[in-house]
Amino acid sequence: MSIELTILGCHSATPRENAHPTSQIVTIKNHTFLVDCGEGTQVQLRKYSVKFNKIKHIFISHLHGDHFYGLIGLISTFRLLNRETELHVYAPKGLKEIITLQLKLSKSWTQYPLYFHELSSTKSEIIFEDEKVIVSTIPLSHRIYTNGFLFKEKLGERKLNMEAIAYYPDIKICDYQNLKNGNDFKLDDGTILKNSKLTLAPNKPLSYAYCSDTEYYPEITTIINNIDGLYHEATFLNDKEVLAKTTKHSTAQHAAEIAKMAQVKKLIIGHFSSRYKNKDGFLSEAKNVFKNTLLAEEGKVFKIM
Amino acid sequence: MSIELTILGCHSATPRENAHPTSQIVTIKNHTFLVDCGEGTQVQLRKYSVKFNKIKHIFISHLHGDHFYGLIGLISTFRLLNRETELHVYAPKGLKEIITLQLKLSKSWTQYPLYFHELSSTKSEIIFEDEKVIVSTIPLSHRIYTNGFLFKEKLGERKLNMEAIAYYPDIKICDYQNLKNGNDFKLDDGTILKNSKLTLAPNKPLSYAYCSDTEYYPEITTIINNIDGLYHEATFLNDKEVLAKTTKHSTAQHAAEIAKMAQVKKLIIGHFSSRYKNKDGFLSEAKNVFKNTLLAEEGKVFKIM
Repeated sequence: MSIELTILGCHSATPRENAHPTSQIVTIKNHTFLVDCGEGTQVQLRKYSVKFNKIKHIFISHLHGDHFYGLIGLISTFRLLNRETELHVYAPKGLKEIITLQLKLSKSWTQYPLYFHELSSTKSEIIFEDEKVIVSTIPLSHRIYTNGFLFKEKLGERKLNMEAIAYYPDIKICDYQNLKNGNDFKLDDGTILKNSKLTLAPNKPLSYAYCSDTEYYPEITTIINNIDGLYHEATFLNDKEVLAKTTKHSTAQHAAEIAKMAQVKKLIIGHFSSRYKNKDGFLSEAKNVFKNTLLAEEGKVFKIM
Repeated sequence: MSIELTILGCHSATPRENAHPTSQIVTIKNHTFLVDCGEGTQVQLRKYSVKFNKIKHIFISHLHGDHFYGLIGLISTFRLLNRETELHVYAPKGLKEIITLQLKLSKSWTQYPLYFHELSSTKSEIIFEDEKVIVSTIPLSHRIYTNGFLFKEKLGERKLNMEAIAYYPDIKICDYQNLKNGNDFKLDDGTILKNSKLTLAPNKPLSYAYCSDTEYYPEITTIINNIDGLYHEATFLNDKEVLAKTTKHSTAQHAAEIAKMAQVKKLIIGHFSSRYKNKDGFLSEAKNVFKNTLLAEEGKVFKIM
């Protein structure tokens, strides 16, 4: 199993025909999470065949337009498609007012349940949890209140060791769940079989963090320490370090330094400024510091495993 | 001279890769008016090489998303491009709140002057006027408060009859403007030359009306009577007349009947529902009633003359 990351847009600021603002799909366990939703995201979702109905949770990092201007259109389209499934939006305080004002004025309330989970804490907090996945915020440092998001699989069930189980006809299929849950097994003759004899350790839970937009902010490394995949913004190259500082964005080198410091397994960089026509500079600048760096690219699917 | 209409999007409801929601450019005299602004309009403007800085007036018909969700992004992009030129937005009451709320929350006020002219009258009113052009509203009948827009050239100056003028060496270049203004000319010997001898009648002023969205609404024909070009919505074909009535939209036949009744010179239909893959049905249905009908098409430029 793996976490899958599909890039719908990985450019900063204004949308262009072949450079869409930020949006991505994070597929983890049975979830299809949408992270950020710049203008045109719904068209990108169609282009890359993401089923609208699978999206039940949308995470918005901050209220700069290139990260959320596509949300009202997506919410409206869900309505036009007669969606019934509930939708949860996790976003900085204020987004609920923006969306509901527009729905009110257009007299177009959603017929499906729409829930806003407004964020305002500057400390990391758990914002979604079920039996398999946990999502928490990563407070970032940008010009306005911004959160990254950490997506973590929970430790799964133990896996059946079918070779070992085959020795014991007493163990029936209906016992498997008990074994997966870690329980020992009692044979008919009273012998206790240790669970570790019959099962294997569960897969290591995977984790992925999305960090955009932010200036170079080493404080996050304690939260994202040792994760399997990190998407970190790299708006500029090092030659624009001063501009990065003023606008509270990162350079490719900054992103790589964060990845190195946090000892993540894989770094994906994006949120490129349109001033750079060629993206090779981002890759080489980052790789100088952190070798396992990849470039985000629209439509590309990254496997975090 | 002519009025030029550039179609940026002519589909209803949700945007798709090759079917953009409503937006068009009306070029009249020296103005580049943007009419409606569905999601993705700024990308379409770039695609069809419309210079951002030429757009000083934006007219929004109503607050359904497919007519205005692209506006906040365009306004933000103008800011990012360091626009200094003022921008005027004519729109139903409420839009100002929608836009300013978002600019406030993103801490991204425009550095250029942004003026909202909020509309709420249900009677036709003049909303823009200068020495060459006049724009007035056309109250429509839709599910929410909606206006069409009538763009009219004013009667221009008289044109110099250079052949006639050549007979009179007394008439100098510095006298031309006086002649264009319709004044007679006094020769040095005291003879009065009638203006009509020295000039020709000005061009007939042209007019164009945009009517979308609306149900079949013959009340508008008094306002658009005898105009040179009419863009009228035709969301459905006749087979969906009941649906048209429920949703307060028009069929192609409705649009043609309005054009015929108002005796307009040319009809352009658009705002097509995505349920119709092929648009030929719209054209034949309308042409049965009004021969000079044309189909809107993205990127197409229509000359109204």
